[in-house]
Amino acid sequence: MDRRSFLRTSALGGSAAAASGLAAPAIAQGNRTLTLVTTWPRGLAGVHDSAQHVADTIGAMSDGQLTVDLKAAGELVGAFEVFDAVTAGQADMYHGVDYYFLGQHPAYAFFASVPFGMTAQELAVWYYQNGGQELHDELGQIFGLKSFLAGNTGAQSGGWFRNEITGPEDFQGLRFRMPGQGGQVLGKLGASVQNLPGGEVYQALSSGAIDGTEWIGPWSDQSAGFQEITDIYYTAGFHEPGPGLSLATNRDVFESLSPAHQKIIEMAAAESHQWTLSLFLANNGRALQQLQSGGVRTFEFPDSVWDALGTASAEVLQENMDDDLYARTHDSYMESLRSTTSWIQMSEGAFSQQRNRVMGEM
Amino acid sequence: MDRRSFLRTSALGGSAAAASGLAAPAIAQGNRTLTLVTTWPRGLAGVHDSAQHVADTIGAMSDGQLTVDLKAAGELVGAFEVFDAVTAGQADMYHGVDYYFLGQHPAYAFFASVPFGMTAQELAVWYYQNGGQELHDELGQIFGLKSFLAGNTGAQSGGWFRNEITGPEDFQGLRFRMPGQGGQVLGKLGASVQNLPGGEVYQALSSGAIDGTEWIGPWSDQSAGFQEITDIYYTAGFHEPGPGLSLATNRDVFESLSPAHQKIIEMAAAESHQWTLSLFLANNGRALQQLQSGGVRTFEFPDSVWDALGTASAEVLQENMDDDLYARTHDSYMESLRSTTSWIQMSEGAFSQQRNRVMGEM
Repeated sequence: MDRRSFLRTSALGGSAAAASGLAAPAIAQGNRTLTLVTTWPRGLAGVHDSAQHVADTIGAMSDGQLTVDLKAAGELVGAFEVFDAVTAGQADMYHGVDYYFLGQHPAYAFFASVPFGMTAQELAVWYYQNGGQELHDELGQIFGLKSFLAGNTGAQSGGWFRNEITGPEDFQGLRFRMPGQGGQVLGKLGASVQNLPGGEVYQALSSGAIDGTEWIGPWSDQSAGFQEITDIYYTAGFHEPGPGLSLATNRDVFESLSPAHQKIIEMAAAESHQWTLSLFLANNGRALQQLQSGGVRTFEFPDSVWDALGTASAEVLQENMDDDLYARTHDSYMESLRSTTSWIQMSEGAFSQQRNRVMGEM
Repeated sequence: MDRRSFLRTSALGGSAAAASGLAAPAIAQGNRTLTLVTTWPRGLAGVHDSAQHVADTIGAMSDGQLTVDLKAAGELVGAFEVFDAVTAGQADMYHGVDYYFLGQHPAYAFFASVPFGMTAQELAVWYYQNGGQELHDELGQIFGLKSFLAGNTGAQSGGWFRNEITGPEDFQGLRFRMPGQGGQVLGKLGASVQNLPGGEVYQALSSGAIDGTEWIGPWSDQSAGFQEITDIYYTAGFHEPGPGLSLATNRDVFESLSPAHQKIIEMAAAESHQWTLSLFLANNGRALQQLQSGGVRTFEFPDSVWDALGTASAEVLQENMDDDLYARTHDSYMESLRSTTSWIQMSEGAFSQQRNRVMGEM
């Protein structure tokens, strides 16, 4: 079936109904169901909630004229097949994290998270004010997508280790689970990077097949049960400081919608960026307290490790600079980061440190 | 005129049109204009933009069925009269900062900003996940309002001083401009707190009538021109670490709207919280660089000052605890802050410090 012509027929059907003088606005404008496929297993805390939140918001704001039918990973297509499914018109939208699609284009990394990159707040600044959204749109056009930032997990934790890390040399030969660009960075430090499926990580850490793993953050990590295996938890990670989630709509589908419905989708996605971040932060905060009460010890990598990770991260980010769109996205991202981070650090960063120090003593 | 009965008549008019079988959905559902009064002069950078953004988003998502007619401060009522105007039904909505309305109820402080309180991100966690929105709604019911968080300026700067601050004793007798609860805190340190109207601050600092002033942040401070008078700029302030802006609708008006239009207003406000914050951060970042290039020196208060400010701030926040709703709001706010701040500081806080240290050296 030619999806595009099907959609045009459907839209015409709506117009014909309006012209015939039917009074009910819902019929006159044509109700429509949009199939949303996600990269998340149904019910996966936080990220599935984020997709469902977007779906519900679109339905409620459109008065049911748009119904979003959420198909979790495996229900219509597999997690990593959502991109192609929406590009081909097999589904109308996907909700996922765009660094899954670096094979389609390496610039997708910047709309999710890159090592030593932006926090969620900095990502919002770039995306909504400093050109990020326009670049996401340009990237989407290559693949027939209309993409929006639509969620964030907040900074992911450094991970669980069987032994403390005292310097960059401790990563030499360390068998560590970390996917994506973060794993490439650890590889440059000599780690033996393991890309295990999520379901196998607990067993691998428990048996000693790996020496450590990153996962998401206290909320999800606690559910996975890593605190049963080791009490050494590095809270700050370098690899995903504020991973954005995306909502991408097939571009022909998007363009067939009314401007009001397009705006509803755009705003539902944007609101979900903040809502999802707040969901993760609220639950991570409570889970961290529980982990600490249960005996988990929290650590920070020493400066020498951060230095080595920083150098390796910059190298990884340079690797695709021969692609024009990647290079322009990289430069725009870094320019926004450089121009905003000083103020954030010198205002709310300095405030937060002082407030927490003082309140801890009161 | 009884605004409520007028509105009900108007809504009925819309229904009658629908029943008569007119096809155009806009007419069938009844177009409606909502008058939005703001606490901001027309064009005031950032905050007026925030109100206009909400107005535009509501119009676009409702396909023009809701038109928001923005009246800036002084155009229909004065800045501090917007609360009463919406409560009385003279206007339909206000956009402003709720600490202007501490005279109506002291609990409004928590939905704007309190000394030593939440950053914008922490405020979103409390508001959207930990009970803040429900308390805002309970507070609004007292006054016939339906209130939503709808913007944020980010952490405000510590301010401009004619002399460096070396300890809390330097505030003794210091003539400093700071309104609201922050001013009460400085008063406890012995400062002579001045509540000057915005238009008089530059002249007062320039003539030496005051020894210093806080304003908003680099973007607005630069426009005000304080860098022409002194080069001593404290970037981190204690008094407004993440002031929320609010959109409040007359409750009868809100309840007369369809569920879809209610959701559109709610989501437009929520999206504006993030959008406005990103607007301020983007512009503050650039303005800080320009101020520094122009010779402004940035400072942090010493620990002894933060200690004294912390003690005084806690005292100020205790002053209304005999009011049940204030006490419940205070406790909910503090519980959310305590439960989330450790994780934020130990993850993205620690990451940001390390990234900025490493990137500064690269």
